[in-house]
Amino acid sequence: MTRVSIQGEAGAFSHRAAQQLLGPDIDLHPCRTFDEAFAAVLSHEVDRAVIPVENALAGPVVEPLDLLWSTGLRVVGETRVRVRLCLSAPHGVHLEDVRSVASHPVALKQCRGLFDAHPLMESVVVYDTAGSVRDLMLGNADYDAAIGSPLAAELYGANVLVDGVEDDDRNYTRFFELAEPGGEGSTEDGDCAAIAVVIRNEPGGLHEVLGAFADYGVDMTQIVARPIRGAPWQYRFYMEVRADRPQILTDCLRVLEDAAEETRVFGTYSRCEDASAG
Amino acid sequence: MTRVSIQGEAGAFSHRAAQQLLGPDIDLHPCRTFDEAFAAVLSHEVDRAVIPVENALAGPVVEPLDLLWSTGLRVVGETRVRVRLCLSAPHGVHLEDVRSVASHPVALKQCRGLFDAHPLMESVVVYDTAGSVRDLMLGNADYDAAIGSPLAAELYGANVLVDGVEDDDRNYTRFFELAEPGGEGSTEDGDCAAIAVVIRNEPGGLHEVLGAFADYGVDMTQIVARPIRGAPWQYRFYMEVRADRPQILTDCLRVLEDAAEETRVFGTYSRCEDASAG
Repeated sequence: MTRVSIQGEAGAFSHRAAQQLLGPDIDLHPCRTFDEAFAAVLSHEVDRAVIPVENALAGPVVEPLDLLWSTGLRVVGETRVRVRLCLSAPHGVHLEDVRSVASHPVALKQCRGLFDAHPLMESVVVYDTAGSVRDLMLGNADYDAAIGSPLAAELYGANVLVDGVEDDDRNYTRFFELAEPGGEGSTEDGDCAAIAVVIRNEPGGLHEVLGAFADYGVDMTQIVARPIRGAPWQYRFYMEVRADRPQILTDCLRVLEDAAEETRVFGTYSRCEDASAG
Repeated sequence: MTRVSIQGEAGAFSHRAAQQLLGPDIDLHPCRTFDEAFAAVLSHEVDRAVIPVENALAGPVVEPLDLLWSTGLRVVGETRVRVRLCLSAPHGVHLEDVRSVASHPVALKQCRGLFDAHPLMESVVVYDTAGSVRDLMLGNADYDAAIGSPLAAELYGANVLVDGVEDDDRNYTRFFELAEPGGEGSTEDGDCAAIAVVIRNEPGGLHEVLGAFADYGVDMTQIVARPIRGAPWQYRFYMEVRADRPQILTDCLRVLEDAAEETRVFGTYSRCEDASAG
């Protein structure tokens, strides 16, 4: 059984992503922080980490992008999970009885319609979506209901009062499957690549790098400038690119090495187009 | 007296930035959220908002960048504040007595050396750096000391136990001074511009936009891709650019309108090179 670290509790969206990537029978290692989830791969405590890198509404999740650079873990797969949120509570609690609702602040913010429709409901900020459901069902909570994934409701035996309580049903999160540096698992194939590029420190440096992509018809699907520690206002660019064929990608990445100060390829993979209803 | 909204409590780094931009005698309006700080300008409750847009270690502060787009507030000035953190406590409390230290989680993370050197100290997560000092001094807190700005220690009458408790003394935050849309205050001058660009949805779209900068020798100093709500995986680029002379900038921005699907200039300003020791 594949051992997989995630940041967050069982029932988190990362758990769902891990199931999509590696099947339902995984040995899940929930970690408190991204640091710990990455470290578990480096220490061989787990075989894979499954980590969010981007949310369609909130944008990039930057901490994992920095950890890719510092740890050297390789990207060996990608998936998307639809952020479907459920208002759930212990059996016997009715919607009209609910006065306090707990979840992660980002999830609460994505459910404004619920609170507008129920003016007596108060929101309670907690650390984790799945954790809010778990604590509620363990009787360790002083709130009446919690907002989390369908998987969290199922795992902890909660009753779903409202399914799809999120304001925007086109909300997705993208996840990477990560493996140890230099280990098994091909990084040679796939039409997409996750890379980091240090630009020459001169005007037009980024333009030159993007020129290499333009020459090969390679599409840049994400770009995130990350500050370089100890060098205020200097940046490393995290990028994702996609080519029509894996060979074009390989050729383009080779040219890129000349155009940039430093280039690192975290991995190549085939883009997962279909968003799961997960 | 200029009325200024900030996100956070009096004594926050935004308060210090507002003093740098508008002088020591300002009528400060602390707001709980960025939304409220922006809305206060739109409703003429205040004359200016002073808002963080980038931290040298953590990267962009994305919520204000999205609010620039949605509210249309204009950028009329810029400043930088050094993130200097003080461990402070009520008078009579000695460093060796301190067992629990409260602050915002980001500030706590920037003071790892303190906790390594004092293994008996526990960190306590609270909402706000300045708020942690205020609550401590009002006697509303169950922790012994708090980490906040020098200004917060001064405002709330706390005794500084350790000055400069942050791990990295090259940590700065950049702030914008914002004014109402279309109001007074020149946006015609200055060698820097804050803009948003919607790229044509085709490979090479960003390369074409950056080509306009390269042609004019204009340096792009920041780029942040922000997701467009309701259009998953599509982006608007928030950028800051700098030219040798204001006229070059004006010419370049005019050309940019043809190269991009949509361009919006939030304002032009003169770059503040000197980081304050504040």
